[in-house]
Amino acid sequence: MSTTKPVHAEMTQFAVDGGELQVGGVPLTRLAQRVGRTPFYAYDRALLTARVGHVRAHLPAPLRLHYSVKANPMPALVQHMATLVDGLDVASAGELRTALDTGFDPAHVSFAGPGKTDAELTQAIAAGVTLNAESPHEIGRAARIGDALGIAPRIVLRVNPDFELKGSGMRMGGGAKPFGIDAEQVPDCLRQLAALGIALQGFHIFSGSQSLKAEAIAESHARSVELALQLAGAARQPLPALYLGAGFGIPYFPGEQRLDLAPIGDNLAHWLARIDAELPGMRVSVESGRYLVGEAGVYVARVIDRKVSRGQVFLVTDGGLHHHLAASGNFGQVIRKNYPVAVGNRMAAEARETVSVVGPLCTPLDVLAERMDLARADVGDLVVVFQSGAYGLSASPTAFLGHPAPLEVLV
Amino acid sequence: MSTTKPVHAEMTQFAVDGGELQVGGVPLTRLAQRVGRTPFYAYDRALLTARVGHVRAHLPAPLRLHYSVKANPMPALVQHMATLVDGLDVASAGELRTALDTGFDPAHVSFAGPGKTDAELTQAIAAGVTLNAESPHEIGRAARIGDALGIAPRIVLRVNPDFELKGSGMRMGGGAKPFGIDAEQVPDCLRQLAALGIALQGFHIFSGSQSLKAEAIAESHARSVELALQLAGAARQPLPALYLGAGFGIPYFPGEQRLDLAPIGDNLAHWLARIDAELPGMRVSVESGRYLVGEAGVYVARVIDRKVSRGQVFLVTDGGLHHHLAASGNFGQVIRKNYPVAVGNRMAAEARETVSVVGPLCTPLDVLAERMDLARADVGDLVVVFQSGAYGLSASPTAFLGHPAPLEVLV
Repeated sequence: MSTTKPVHAEMTQFAVDGGELQVGGVPLTRLAQRVGRTPFYAYDRALLTARVGHVRAHLPAPLRLHYSVKANPMPALVQHMATLVDGLDVASAGELRTALDTGFDPAHVSFAGPGKTDAELTQAIAAGVTLNAESPHEIGRAARIGDALGIAPRIVLRVNPDFELKGSGMRMGGGAKPFGIDAEQVPDCLRQLAALGIALQGFHIFSGSQSLKAEAIAESHARSVELALQLAGAARQPLPALYLGAGFGIPYFPGEQRLDLAPIGDNLAHWLARIDAELPGMRVSVESGRYLVGEAGVYVARVIDRKVSRGQVFLVTDGGLHHHLAASGNFGQVIRKNYPVAVGNRMAAEARETVSVVGPLCTPLDVLAERMDLARADVGDLVVVFQSGAYGLSASPTAFLGHPAPLEVLV
Repeated sequence: MSTTKPVHAEMTQFAVDGGELQVGGVPLTRLAQRVGRTPFYAYDRALLTARVGHVRAHLPAPLRLHYSVKANPMPALVQHMATLVDGLDVASAGELRTALDTGFDPAHVSFAGPGKTDAELTQAIAAGVTLNAESPHEIGRAARIGDALGIAPRIVLRVNPDFELKGSGMRMGGGAKPFGIDAEQVPDCLRQLAALGIALQGFHIFSGSQSLKAEAIAESHARSVELALQLAGAARQPLPALYLGAGFGIPYFPGEQRLDLAPIGDNLAHWLARIDAELPGMRVSVESGRYLVGEAGVYVARVIDRKVSRGQVFLVTDGGLHHHLAASGNFGQVIRKNYPVAVGNRMAAEARETVSVVGPLCTPLDVLAERMDLARADVGDLVVVFQSGAYGLSASPTAFLGHPAPLEVLV
């Protein structure tokens, strides 16, 4: 019997043993005991390491890999990622502090964000990190603050390209945007930098993220490099670096498949050769957040009540929207779809049923799974939401309705 | 010349003087200096008092008015509300602590929520507050914990009615729901309570919230009272109390108008008379959160950059989605619409322009106003988001991208 109903990509990154999901090699029930309370997020250290290895194996060797801290700023996780990648990208003074705490070379930390305050610019310049400048006004402020501090600011121009990453979950470039400097305004900014006596460190071109289409990503990389080559011609000076958004997505919803990096790597190898010929010595980096950490994390909540309302089974857990807004379907999603979910201590159970998993909040938005086929669960069981390693806890309204914040562990 | 383009309801609750919005009688620029940094939320104490007075003036006098703390749990605000209302409703142990800190009589504090943990039930029973029981399983746990503590739990049955509040922003009743006990299961729960020797304190019937349709609200109140009378017949014991969800909404989006409470009050007066005849002595309370506090608050952010990208003007502020998720359009909204927004220190400016107001985050979701007609603003100006007194800060992912949390003041 065949069915065309779309299903989730298989969550085989975590082993199962004795019916228990294993996170970092620890059975889930044991892990919950060790954490001491539910709900919690758990990130698998070995999976993080393996994922960076996977990316490096598919991308050309000279390419540098940066981790975007905003995807998951848990300090222990950032510390681990810092041992694996070539650069850290931060989006606030808070993330900057986390990045510097790892001992990372500030020259390989970059700070992007369209609304940097004077205080943030001061901290970044004092730390010696690279600023991704987002506007002529910001360049002027950075120059003035650099003068006051007696430190030349390290400035990369963030370019708003005239194209976007097709089919991406988040479009960050193309058209009118608050991010970066429109490509056609870059020559003016180059003159501004020259007048201020600031040496340009490079370009940052980011056209979108969370794409599962290798072809669209390859095309956006190609167009980004073409744009960089063209802008470099206008710059009439050596350009130390080019920063590209990776754009790599992970599968969340039924019907989505994992991205094949091979054609993306082949395409980048072609363009690196072209860069070597035209702009020898320029370092090229790709920045990725979600792809590096998203699949290595789970969110775990305990079943508090099991109730049947008018024929429908609800598992009421101690976790929900306040801890995992994206999984509840309320973070930038137009139509709510289920994340992959399982009962982590009943992975081998034969008895199954269609249930909705909800949280403890008095709002119909507080849903972790809507009418999913899960192992039959009862009070005390542990519900697991997969694909929760990126934009999970930090993207959630933890104070909503006054429940305790969840814990995070790196296992 | 006429236009059919829908507009926002007028935000006349705040006075304007010398071109400055006044919050609690303080000009906005002065208030920002006093708070010491932006962004911040400011709530107007006099507007809160006036709003409770407005509700009491329109609802029949014997009706009791409860404040739902979840709408805005800022301690100073809850303390003020506690001086105005007859009861406080909480949704977690955190809100319970805030409510008890005001010195409120625990007998008039009630605790609702579909996933109460044993720890929360213990705290609530120890405090002597009323529990809105959501399932037979929860009743059993409350009884066991009450036995252990030597305190009889005060239990109200939360009933999932067989109808819902039509046209409401949040449907909380009708159909299969995780909230409360299906009306048809109530007789079983009454037998369960009798067997446990627990005296029922009453019923809680809540069919939805954020409705701007007086007729729909009146109908839901009527059906709730009818259901309560019918269930009371089955209870065969005196029922001390009935708790009704108010369902009152406030206007957020273009085209929405303020609710007229007069027909709602007339309708409730009719039903109170009926209750007095059939169930003399029963206290009837209505619970409201958003309606009491939502219009009394503003969110204030400062313009950090003003940029033009491909013909479109962007005001980049230090505030955004991370502080005010609902205003960004990412909290349970299908189609993003603008909240009412103004430039609070240029309320009398003649120069106007169409701009988008965005935040400092590297995500296209971080929008406070999309292509709105506002006073022409520049760096340093203060953007105000109205209708921000409920479900603002506490419903926002403040840790997202690592920026500092906003402050809150009650003026």
